[in-house]
Amino acid sequence: MDSENLARNRSAITGVGYTPLSRASGLPVDALALNASIDAIRDAGLTPQDIDGVVSYAVGDSALVRSTAQALGLEASNWYVDLFGGGSFSCLAVANAAMAVSVGLCRHVLVYRALNGRSGRRFGRSASAELEGVGGAEQFTVPFGQLAPVHNYGMLARRHMIEYGTTTEQLGHVAVTLRSNAVENDRAIMRHPITLEDHRESRWIADPFRLLDCCQETDGACALVVSRSDIARDLPHPPAYLSSFAIGGRGASALAPDKVDDFTTFFPAHIAPGLFARAGIEVGDIDLAALYDAFTFLVIGQLEDFGFCPKGEGGPFVADGNIARDGTIPVGTNGGLLSEGYVHGLNNVLEAVSQLRGKAGTRQVDGVEVALASGWGANVGSALILSRGA
Amino acid sequence: MDSENLARNRSAITGVGYTPLSRASGLPVDALALNASIDAIRDAGLTPQDIDGVVSYAVGDSALVRSTAQALGLEASNWYVDLFGGGSFSCLAVANAAMAVSVGLCRHVLVYRALNGRSGRRFGRSASAELEGVGGAEQFTVPFGQLAPVHNYGMLARRHMIEYGTTTEQLGHVAVTLRSNAVENDRAIMRHPITLEDHRESRWIADPFRLLDCCQETDGACALVVSRSDIARDLPHPPAYLSSFAIGGRGASALAPDKVDDFTTFFPAHIAPGLFARAGIEVGDIDLAALYDAFTFLVIGQLEDFGFCPKGEGGPFVADGNIARDGTIPVGTNGGLLSEGYVHGLNNVLEAVSQLRGKAGTRQVDGVEVALASGWGANVGSALILSRGA
Repeated sequence: MDSENLARNRSAITGVGYTPLSRASGLPVDALALNASIDAIRDAGLTPQDIDGVVSYAVGDSALVRSTAQALGLEASNWYVDLFGGGSFSCLAVANAAMAVSVGLCRHVLVYRALNGRSGRRFGRSASAELEGVGGAEQFTVPFGQLAPVHNYGMLARRHMIEYGTTTEQLGHVAVTLRSNAVENDRAIMRHPITLEDHRESRWIADPFRLLDCCQETDGACALVVSRSDIARDLPHPPAYLSSFAIGGRGASALAPDKVDDFTTFFPAHIAPGLFARAGIEVGDIDLAALYDAFTFLVIGQLEDFGFCPKGEGGPFVADGNIARDGTIPVGTNGGLLSEGYVHGLNNVLEAVSQLRGKAGTRQVDGVEVALASGWGANVGSALILSRGA
Repeated sequence: MDSENLARNRSAITGVGYTPLSRASGLPVDALALNASIDAIRDAGLTPQDIDGVVSYAVGDSALVRSTAQALGLEASNWYVDLFGGGSFSCLAVANAAMAVSVGLCRHVLVYRALNGRSGRRFGRSASAELEGVGGAEQFTVPFGQLAPVHNYGMLARRHMIEYGTTTEQLGHVAVTLRSNAVENDRAIMRHPITLEDHRESRWIADPFRLLDCCQETDGACALVVSRSDIARDLPHPPAYLSSFAIGGRGASALAPDKVDDFTTFFPAHIAPGLFARAGIEVGDIDLAALYDAFTFLVIGQLEDFGFCPKGEGGPFVADGNIARDGTIPVGTNGGLLSEGYVHGLNNVLEAVSQLRGKAGTRQVDGVEVALASGWGANVGSALILSRGA
């Protein structure tokens, strides 16, 4: 494993911004992108004229970066990138900005994700799978009704239950724990407490996932600013240094019939060793995990494959309280995608920053020095190691 | 201008690959992507197992990188990126790969562009402007019939004619010169020689552009491999070092009514100073310019704003023979997008590599040590400085 990392701690997240999260924003995505961006730039103590790069990711449902740059009144920029992707691209977008800063191309790169995910295009609906033109691995799954993310991840969860005895109640522990964090987060769209019984009795979406196993499709946007570290130290907030990043996984799509001999090993198994080595840390050094949690099971799968617990023991691990705010590895302290809202993963990165700053209010975890954030789509994922100290 | 560039010459293009270019490939884009990729990997003296990153760009018309990774049989990768963009993203895709290599994340990154641009989705047709959901700057242009790239760039060309006296005959010189190069290129789809008269008499597409001012929509793919420089030196071909790169321009869309007070200053004016400074060169050091040439006028606009000639003098400059193979700055030595084919700009990057290797056959330019490649879309563009020596 090559652990050379010229980007290590050369950049840091210096500003975070949000729009309100809702089921019907009443605004076009361009306005959401702009509002979150302005909020993040202001939080960093900067003005739009300081921004010299813009990165976003979308699946045809957002504002292009040059539209946002225009709306912000940027005169020129060195790095404009629209990425085409969903859940696996949240940390990739930040990594892309970190690279542009690290090699010397930019001083301050704006990163945002804006979507009307509930009132506009609903990512989780089967309708989002366009039957026309389905090719590649999907030709073997889509015609059989495996149309939406909930179907794909449901199959992975079911396989894990068969292989390792993971239970519905253990999935419920993820939902209940994250909801208990959302109760402390006035930005969260789902703030009423829930119980294991609520989870068990919620309606089926796609076996083994019930309603409370699934994230809440959301309208809203969030944004952050990645700055050069030497400049970051003079800005208002403690920098959240970008110590390392990765995106990867097997080339195979999650449920393609080819190349998959193991349905219960996920992307972190492929990227974690390099990710940790390049940051100079081990898994035990991580104080908080902002794991991508579009479905409850994803937390269990990632806990195992990032190495927080042994393979197959993710279910008991969450049931034992390890992911609570006072547990061994707090997860989803904002409520996660499950309960804060689904801004396609980027909101979880922002929570990691708030926790590293020590500014997470009543949901603050004590002494967060190193945080992991992740994004997941199909069989590919991205991840960041964020550090309070450079 | 900050000229720090940690990425300078840390990576190099080591392999190039093509499919045949045609008007009807008879293959799905996935197969085109795979075939060009295999060709590039083989040209680099590598096997798919050496590739640890994949980058592509598309506008919903190509193979996603994880599909191509799967088809290649890659087991794992550190950098998967699908970029969402067209002409402005050709050099950006290469730059993205260069950054992933430069910071230590990857050893060999595959970059490709595959499209059935003629038999499938035709990028240049008005139908590609989807009226539903038009927003931002386009709400002020699309309803008035300004639907396709040819309309946008035609307006820029007409304004330049008004301001600086640029003529149809000068546009014709670009078409004729590039076609004379395509005659020497057995990959080119347009190989019959043309004259200024042919150009002048070709049918209107959108005033001031005639048929021979417009590139040829094409089916095909091309690919390249970006490798770590220390490894590149042991591979079969002389490395084409990536000395610097940039993407940028004004935030404003090319013809938005807002923020544009000058319709004849283009993206290179914004990025050239930094691009050259980070490579440690001046414009006079550039031996070959693989300029993005979807329309003849784009060559004239870029020659001026990259600084090869004074502002407003691009027309006489091309008419005086400066862009010919034996001119002061050869352009489009492969025939360019105008005559080799339209692989959305990436084929021009490959030509720069062939010229740096000294392997361009009868169209070889003597002594190419430093080459510029560019991509252009709306008011944003990307560019690379490629060097034979590190």
